[in-house]
Amino acid sequence: MRNIRLIVEYDGGGYAGWQVQPHAPTVQGALVHALERLTGERVSLVGASRTDAGVHALGQTANFRTGSALALERIRAGMNALLPADIVVREAAEAEAEFDSRRDARGKRYLYTIVNRDCRPALLRDRAWFIDRPLDIALMREAAVHFVGRHDFASFMASGSDAATTVREITSVEIDAKEDGVVEISVGGTAFLRHMVRIMAGTLADAGLGRIAPGDVAGIIEAADRRRAAKTAPARGLTLVRVEY
Amino acid sequence: MRNIRLIVEYDGGGYAGWQVQPHAPTVQGALVHALERLTGERVSLVGASRTDAGVHALGQTANFRTGSALALERIRAGMNALLPADIVVREAAEAEAEFDSRRDARGKRYLYTIVNRDCRPALLRDRAWFIDRPLDIALMREAAVHFVGRHDFASFMASGSDAATTVREITSVEIDAKEDGVVEISVGGTAFLRHMVRIMAGTLADAGLGRIAPGDVAGIIEAADRRRAAKTAPARGLTLVRVEY
Repeated sequence: MRNIRLIVEYDGGGYAGWQVQPHAPTVQGALVHALERLTGERVSLVGASRTDAGVHALGQTANFRTGSALALERIRAGMNALLPADIVVREAAEAEAEFDSRRDARGKRYLYTIVNRDCRPALLRDRAWFIDRPLDIALMREAAVHFVGRHDFASFMASGSDAATTVREITSVEIDAKEDGVVEISVGGTAFLRHMVRIMAGTLADAGLGRIAPGDVAGIIEAADRRRAAKTAPARGLTLVRVEY
Repeated sequence: MRNIRLIVEYDGGGYAGWQVQPHAPTVQGALVHALERLTGERVSLVGASRTDAGVHALGQTANFRTGSALALERIRAGMNALLPADIVVREAAEAEAEFDSRRDARGKRYLYTIVNRDCRPALLRDRAWFIDRPLDIALMREAAVHFVGRHDFASFMASGSDAATTVREITSVEIDAKEDGVVEISVGGTAFLRHMVRIMAGTLADAGLGRIAPGDVAGIIEAADRRRAAKTAPARGLTLVRVEY
């Protein structure tokens, strides 16, 4: 059996998230459907990140095993002809027999986009969180420093989720103020808890709005208590940029 | 009567263009409908640019006369509450009695976006023209130089349109190669003919693909013949960035 690695871009707006569910369109479901039509086989597709409903990806990574002899370019082009316009396979490559896109991921990078101005965005309405009060970018950067490193991020995990450990390592958090009120938060880490980037984005926005002091982030992390961190920022602002192996 | 100037952002994907038409949703129609509900008056709204179906705007400018005493912020917020999510009024300001957003425009800036990579875009599918063969950005920049200045742009006007004169002045054409295959063409000028930026974008793409030499652009302009220039690039790649007065 060949093991094929895919890099996938999608607009999550039309999907109930990555993972297959009965009675709801999912990105994994759309990809598996295209693969099964293309190969004539039953296919099991593993994704690196189980992105939530409404979350986008530029570089989700997934893999599947197949007995098909189709050339890689035929797999990619064939899938792209079958997939809806909001999902595209950017790359298809042969992977080692044991490669598992989820288990073998060594790092991920996410981008969280905010539109900070005095009126709602029309062009970015499905790609960003709209905040109408002015954000102080310097305060957000001061707050962001506290996330970097290896910490127990229990305060930054969706309540009710379970994880063997809530210790994770964040390698960088960069905040970029761009044209037209767009603020981008780029977060890199080895692995992430459920809703972690969105709760971090909410907490950074609280710092930017002066609701908390930048230094409060250290205490919020230390508390290991979901109630101490901010609300989860909206899914539509989040994009999985890439997965590293 | 007050004369109110609006700056409007919209996603043109859902509209048959700016200008009111019977039996088709238009941006002007949506704005007039919101204004009439808000003021209780019949309103006539003049837009600086009659953007085509599918063309977007970050800063379309329009004006209307009203007997209403509503504060500017009430006009803006009221319209934004009534408008669909893909249109937003960014600014409302008092204008001189004689101000006419169309006649008084002294310059406009447009952005044309291309995605140049080997697979179609999912996230930018409604905001860019997808070109799968590699563009040579240096050749595009060489070609672009020929547009700058005061020329007869008859080769760059939709056939069948009429204009008192086809002489226009282009003040700058800049080409920016960004991340992930995104190529942005920024065009500034005093005024534009119908489809002019889209025909320029098509011609610049032809230069980038090696279909024409950069120097050929001078002859295409000189010919004053629509058949000499490239095909009109798709509307979805075009955004009206701002209007200058």
